Amino acid sequence: MIFYYAPYTCAVASHIALEESGADFELRRIDFSTTEQRSDDYLKINPKGRVPALVTDRGIITETPAILAFIAQSFPEAGLAPIDDFFEFAQVHAFNNYLCATVHVAHAHKVRGTRWVDDSAAIELMKLKVPQTMAECFSLIENEMLKGPWVMGEKYSICDIYLFTLSQWLKGDGVDINTFPKVTDHTQRMLEKSAVKKVIALQAG
Amino acid sequence: MIFYYAPYTCAVASHIALEESGADFELRRIDFSTTEQRSDDYLKINPKGRVPALVTDRGIITETPAILAFIAQSFPEAGLAPIDDFFEFAQVHAFNNYLCATVHVAHAHKVRGTRWVDDSAAIELMKLKVPQTMAECFSLIENEMLKGPWVMGEKYSICDIYLFTLSQWLKGDGVDINTFPKVTDHTQRMLEKSAVKKVIALQAG
Repeated sequence: MIFYYAPYTCAVASHIALEESGADFELRRIDFSTTEQRSDDYLKINPKGRVPALVTDRGIITETPAILAFIAQSFPEAGLAPIDDFFEFAQVHAFNNYLCATVHVAHAHKVRGTRWVDDSAAIELMKLKVPQTMAECFSLIENEMLKGPWVMGEKYSICDIYLFTLSQWLKGDGVDINTFPKVTDHTQRMLEKSAVKKVIALQAG
Repeated sequence: MIFYYAPYTCAVASHIALEESGADFELRRIDFSTTEQRSDDYLKINPKGRVPALVTDRGIITETPAILAFIAQSFPEAGLAPIDDFFEFAQVHAFNNYLCATVHVAHAHKVRGTRWVDDSAAIELMKLKVPQTMAECFSLIENEMLKGPWVMGEKYSICDIYLFTLSQWLKGDGVDINTFPKVTDHTQRMLEKSAVKKVIALQAG
């Protein structure tokens, strides 16, 4: 498989999951500084012009929750999701979907405001609300979703990988992670994992 | 099961899927005009204060892509997704995730702008871009995603149900669906389905 990514994006989640799965894959870094994600070559991989994208021998998969579910189902020995229990698997999807469609979207209003408005003053005004919206999202995660010690309870899963990825954005979004003790503890435990250390080192390098 | 919904929202998708599945369920309508979705009683069902929510005997599922996948996996005889093929199922997730995290979000900037900005002028400016962003989304769907005759090709799936639901929003968003011949044809075929007719009649009634 070939994994297309850019550092400090949500692609970190799929990258960690690939490391955890034991899958054999190659990395291809997309350079956002030259907007390579909009290049003709990359648009053939992902017409949406976004990362991540996972090229498999059967075709290309995009969208973080879909890639994470595919990795969990394709490498069951890694135990990354309750794939044999439809209800539990739906809970995994629901959590990851919330991260993707609500939390990531809230964050994106800081740096990708041009997606939704053209006026430059309005783009600046949208940035002002990001600390509030991100804090509201993580308050819900802290109080209603994160069962503990892992997101789904006793078992580590793709939900933890994805949550860790977005938790890393809080500081830049003007939110103090220490406001959320369970999330803070979760992040610290994630940082001890070898797959996480490997991806973070590669990202910084 | 108990299904919480509001008419003309994305809950239509899960409702149609429930009808298609043959599941036994009760309907509970949430009144957005009195912001019942933020009432104490409903927040106990879904702390996010949104519809849809599906109450099962094992717990509550939220988020449209998660509910759709759960219905497809729980009622395999309805044939609503390629649940035994991880790659195909990931493609289903990827498509539905795009609808949820990009298309629905683009649409939401018309009527739910207060989620992302407080300034009233900025809220109005965001509305101006909705026809463009929704047209761009449906252009990608028309040209890159909808394989035909159904989203995933020969087989009808939860992707078709969800696409139909959001296609219904185009007119209100200032986009002429006829610009997209494949989507137009898709909508017409969906409108012939008895499950779709039933849900639309109930919504209007």
